[in-house]
Amino acid sequence: MNNDKFLIGIDGGGTRCRARLESLDGRVLGEGVSGPANVMRCLTTAKASIQHACEQAIASSGMTIASDQLLVGAGLAGANVPSALHNTLQWQHPFAEFKVISDLHAACIGAHAGGEGAVIICGTGSSGTRYQGGRFADLGGHGFLVGDIGSGAWLGLQSIQHTLQVLDGIRTPDSLAAAVLEHLQCDDALALVQVCASYTARDYAALAPCIVPLVNDPTSFASALFRQGVAYLQNLAQQLVLDTSLPLCLIGGLSHIYKAHFSAAIQRHLVDCQQCPEQGAIHFMKQQITLKECGA
Amino acid sequence: MNNDKFLIGIDGGGTRCRARLESLDGRVLGEGVSGPANVMRCLTTAKASIQHACEQAIASSGMTIASDQLLVGAGLAGANVPSALHNTLQWQHPFAEFKVISDLHAACIGAHAGGEGAVIICGTGSSGTRYQGGRFADLGGHGFLVGDIGSGAWLGLQSIQHTLQVLDGIRTPDSLAAAVLEHLQCDDALALVQVCASYTARDYAALAPCIVPLVNDPTSFASALFRQGVAYLQNLAQQLVLDTSLPLCLIGGLSHIYKAHFSAAIQRHLVDCQQCPEQGAIHFMKQQITLKECGA
Repeated sequence: MNNDKFLIGIDGGGTRCRARLESLDGRVLGEGVSGPANVMRCLTTAKASIQHACEQAIASSGMTIASDQLLVGAGLAGANVPSALHNTLQWQHPFAEFKVISDLHAACIGAHAGGEGAVIICGTGSSGTRYQGGRFADLGGHGFLVGDIGSGAWLGLQSIQHTLQVLDGIRTPDSLAAAVLEHLQCDDALALVQVCASYTARDYAALAPCIVPLVNDPTSFASALFRQGVAYLQNLAQQLVLDTSLPLCLIGGLSHIYKAHFSAAIQRHLVDCQQCPEQGAIHFMKQQITLKECGA
Repeated sequence: MNNDKFLIGIDGGGTRCRARLESLDGRVLGEGVSGPANVMRCLTTAKASIQHACEQAIASSGMTIASDQLLVGAGLAGANVPSALHNTLQWQHPFAEFKVISDLHAACIGAHAGGEGAVIICGTGSSGTRYQGGRFADLGGHGFLVGDIGSGAWLGLQSIQHTLQVLDGIRTPDSLAAAVLEHLQCDDALALVQVCASYTARDYAALAPCIVPLVNDPTSFASALFRQGVAYLQNLAQQLVLDTSLPLCLIGGLSHIYKAHFSAAIQRHLVDCQQCPEQGAIHFMKQQITLKECGA
């Protein structure tokens, strides 16, 4: 029987679950990717994705490692909701250790390599958090429809609302409406409504690539939407780091378009990420185990 | 066997289905109400609601009337979508006649007693249509999320988005956020997000009664939302009746709050409804039967 232990860091989101396998001294041994791992949306799916991503990471390492040799730290979407976290922690998992934190917090720990700092994630969704004095303070987020302002899903939905008003003759035709109709291969309002009838946040966010090239065109409604997104994320950033000396990382698929439009005061806080969210999850797990060993 | 015929007018929406039973010479004999009748959302439910509302109307008349004595005209939500209308017309219905039109068109025919004119409906949803030269021209609508601007569902969702930003310290606390939190008995963002997690358009629209009293308070974000709603519906109205001499009816639960804020040019077109949507549906059905009898 092999008693060697290995580290696994999990970054589990609404679309994908990534696993990073490391030796105890921090060397990367393998990586794996699987499906959705949002513990609020479906815990059963999330558990399967976590196990599958671990198996993939082990397979990619070419080593023979059993589940009970794994010390797993998992940053999981939905784990910020107390009831979902509680249910996740009831799992009779096969691992030697299994510590859970929200995906946002794991990203923040990774971004600043365990140090104090803040992150804003802007991709399909948007949210922010600050880690200071050993505590997290979350801001924004709240999920698509009621929150996630400035996100890809938000940009996509607003663009479709705009396009319908253009088709109704209520707003002036522009490059945004043309791009949406072209992208979705629609000619009229009825076709557009039918295409979007069962859209999820991810489907709306898939429109972002046709919106992003237009955000600097002042004649396009895309630029007005973009300014709203900038104003919101700038507000989030101010709440997170202004009057502090904390570093701020912007991550996610849309971070590059927003970053340059932040105020000079916020720009001064911006830094690149030191580590990935999987490394952040491993960092958190190690900390928890150390606390336990100290009898805390 | 009794061969006397009777008229039924149906007004079928996403929430309720109303039936009005009339004698051939137009006397009201009975009325019935049942559940949802949106033929796009669920045709099976809609058929059951239509039959149930007819039975209720007959029961309330105290008469004994068989289904095959009924000439039914039905204004149904979702019947504006060609595929949904096609499926509805495949129904092997038990009636002597069954003619279908969209609920919006039935309302417009009723509002102007079969004459030319336009309507804007603003309740849970929002939409408009104009009947002129024997043809309808629809505007707005498109359903909640992508359309229905200014509607109760739209007001409710925007108010919750606003309240979450107030709770995050991104917007200034105001009477709207206070009213939403009071109405939903929530203290923080997490509770609010959980309450809304499975909200439908109807649930968002149920917030309207706590928003409407605030729309004239300039210190409340409710007034900014209301101004957006007014601008949109005013635009709809202009597209529908400006440069015509057509009368315009505003109907639905929120029409009274918007009506007074329209421009003087639009105010001149405003009239009260002559008849209800059920009467509009009967009018349409009679017209269709006459056309058929004329061999058209």
